[in-house]
Amino acid sequence: MVYLTRQEHFNAAHKLFNPAWTKEENEAVFGVCANENWHGHNYNLYVTVKGFPHPDTGFVYDVKKLSVLMKEHVIDYLDHRNLNLDVPFLTGTMCSTENLAIAIWNQLLPHIPENVQLHCVKLYETPRIYVEYFGKQE
Amino acid sequence: MVYLTRQEHFNAAHKLFNPAWTKEENEAVFGVCANENWHGHNYNLYVTVKGFPHPDTGFVYDVKKLSVLMKEHVIDYLDHRNLNLDVPFLTGTMCSTENLAIAIWNQLLPHIPENVQLHCVKLYETPRIYVEYFGKQE
Amino acid sequence: MVYLTRQEHFNAAHKLFNPAWTKEENEAVFGVCANENWHGHNYNLYVTVKGFPHPDTGFVYDVKKLSVLMKEHVIDYLDHRNLNLDVPFLTGTMCSTENLAIAIWNQLLPHIPENVQLHCVKLYETPRIYVEYFGKQE
Amino acid sequence: MVYLTRQEHFNAAHKLFNPAWTKEENEAVFGVCANENWHGHNYNLYVTVKGFPHPDTGFVYDVKKLSVLMKEHVIDYLDHRNLNLDVPFLTGTMCSTENLAIAIWNQLLPHIPENVQLHCVKLYETPRIYVEYFGKQE
Amino acid sequence: MVYLTRQEHFNAAHKLFNPAWTKEENEAVFGVCANENWHGHNYNLYVTVKGFPHPDTGFVYDVKKLSVLMKEHVIDYLDHRNLNLDVPFLTGTMCSTENLAIAIWNQLLPHIPENVQLHCVKLYETPRIYVEYFGKQE
Amino acid sequence: MVYLTRQEHFNAAHKLFNPAWTKEENEAVFGVCANENWHGHNYNLYVTVKGFPHPDTGFVYDVKKLSVLMKEHVIDYLDHRNLNLDVPFLTGTMCSTENLAIAIWNQLLPHIPENVQLHCVKLYETPRIYVEYFGKQE
Repeated sequence: MVYLTRQEHFNAAHKLFNPAWTKEENEAVFGVCANENWHGHNYNLYVTVKGFPHPDTGFVYDVKKLSVLMKEHVIDYLDHRNLNLDVPFLTGTMCSTENLAIAIWNQLLPHIPENVQLHCVKLYETPRIYVEYFGKQE
Repeated sequence: MVYLTRQEHFNAAHKLFNPAWTKEENEAVFGVCANENWHGHNYNLYVTVKGFPHPDTGFVYDVKKLSVLMKEHVIDYLDHRNLNLDVPFLTGTMCSTENLAIAIWNQLLPHIPENVQLHCVKLYETPRIYVEYFGKQE
Repeated sequence: MVYLTRQEHFNAAHKLFNPAWTKEENEAVFGVCANENWHGHNYNLYVTVKGFPHPDTGFVYDVKKLSVLMKEHVIDYLDHRNLNLDVPFLTGTMCSTENLAIAIWNQLLPHIPENVQLHCVKLYETPRIYVEYFGKQE
Repeated sequence: MVYLTRQEHFNAAHKLFNPAWTKEENEAVFGVCANENWHGHNYNLYVTVKGFPHPDTGFVYDVKKLSVLMKEHVIDYLDHRNLNLDVPFLTGTMCSTENLAIAIWNQLLPHIPENVQLHCVKLYETPRIYVEYFGKQE
Repeated sequence: MVYLTRQEHFNAAHKLFNPAWTKEENEAVFGVCANENWHGHNYNLYVTVKGFPHPDTGFVYDVKKLSVLMKEHVIDYLDHRNLNLDVPFLTGTMCSTENLAIAIWNQLLPHIPENVQLHCVKLYETPRIYVEYFGKQE
Repeated sequence: MVYLTRQEHFNAAHKLFNPAWTKEENEAVFGVCANENWHGHNYNLYVTVKGFPHPDTGFVYDVKKLSVLMKEHVIDYLDHRNLNLDVPFLTGTMCSTENLAIAIWNQLLPHIPENVQLHCVKLYETPRIYVEYFGKQE
């Protein structure tokens, strides 16, 4: 079994804000990340699939197709958007990097072909902060 | 003469939007960057000063003091903010990376001590796009 | 379960030197790393915790608190220090990257809150050499 | 148990081309990667071994020896070569990054000393595409 | 005046080989770079233009248009190609990074709009080797 | 004229300490950098030469020869050393990054061949702090 990873990126605005709390409570928990006028990031997304190389191609999965999947089901929804306001599959979700990684996993999973498995969604919010999600089973 | 550079960063939201134009005109020129609900970036800022190393310290300028200057006069105004809405020294400015670099230069210049010269403000909007500004004289 | 990672760094001097050996034996095994007058590195430290995102915040753990833990219990002891001479929790330890990673794990473990688990300490000695430690259980 | 990783690199030419297929079939599957006059990459190779630090040295394995192993059994065969034409241990192999990682694993495995285990071969074809191989057992 | 830079990349095969010399002479001068079956690189290309930000847009030049220029006149000719065999504008040129940077400058210059100036072509052959060309005038 | 740059690195210990001052004065000016037991860095060194590509090779200068010059006259003196104690050409010099860059320039200059000019020594102390020196004439 071989693990294949592709990196894509998106630039988005967001804020950390729990609508059930007051502005003061949000600022106490989230600090500057709760700024009501938003802030933003250059997110870096690494998606890993695993499987066995096909004898005809040597590919676990065509990495260009993986890139297309990531663009169609994730990047096109997130790039140059407001993660709190503009993204149907994030509606009602606290917009942390953790929840964003889980939502990206759920966006991709139905589109992964049968001969490979989705292994990991790794998402960098900044070069110094990232999360990894391996799905529910692990 | 030796050139000394310090890097800091800030994470901010913005949009490219000319208020004198219609929404359609803005989208025609700025594309996804005109998204009305904002997007954002992890900006990387490099500030270069030049001068002669002091014989007692070997320093052109104490790089920790340069870092403090950058934080006090630039980063504290821009980090986790909306560049179009939250920053007094950007009010009325088209929020391009070019104009942002010029504004950062103007913020820093009055605070640079006499024995060094501000040489360059280099600003990365993304790892693949950056601008450099060397002041009016060049 | 989601894995959350934070990066910090420290700049330190050290040497590889076994006091039970002669200078010649040390040089035979450790080469230039045994230079008696020390050498040094910009170490990069990545600490990963794992847990479930809290419904109120979307956080596995507040990454700013993770950063504070790393600074208080690790970075403040190691940054701009001599790893062989200045660090109480390294006394008597061969100062390899491997042992340094284990010592960092042991420094952090008592301070990790109950709702998350310490998963990995990843330590870069140089951009081309790193070690990972996952604790005794793995 | 501690995991120790060393990075090396090599610059090589290759093409993706299945000799059982026509030129048109190759271009349909492999696109520009099938260019008959080759293209090339700066490959980055990370090799991870795992084991217990030796009490005398603090080393899982001497990272300089790991570097020598990688150079002697992998880099010297691949650097500034044509992966399809010049490398005995790749003859008859579809020259994908997946198969290249497996072949590198097989080159290294017989030379890993008994007190450590080869854990992972991670190979970057570009900064945005990499594969990982952990051997047959996983 | 503000300087604006965009990065693109291409993956190509080449060899360093002077057809006026014997194979032995080529190997004496170029070493492994003369390998007759080619080798290759992930080239990174940074193109800098300079000018004054337009009051309506804040742009020296629309960076997306700069990216399109680079792709149409440079990347589409070089990516996944053999630089010695496949590129009309390199025919008869010794395929060093220096000459490649000059050739890229000459490809771009006729397409730079009048209100900006082409300032620099910076080309990385590897992360540790790069050249810069500022045109004939400097 | 084309500019050619090569990167090398060295790992060294140092401290910032003016022997004409008391320990307290040193700590007041240099802070943690004055730690008497030293600290250290992974320094990154970029050396740029400029000249005209030779028609036979396409080279401004053989980058492998530039690498050898850097190793013989700089890296071999600095790598895995104490910059304050072990380096003849730094004796009596305040060991700032600025002075280190000037000293590296002076080490290299006599060995640069006549057909090229030494243009710049760029030295990173950390990924966020670097200095550039262009020689006395500029």
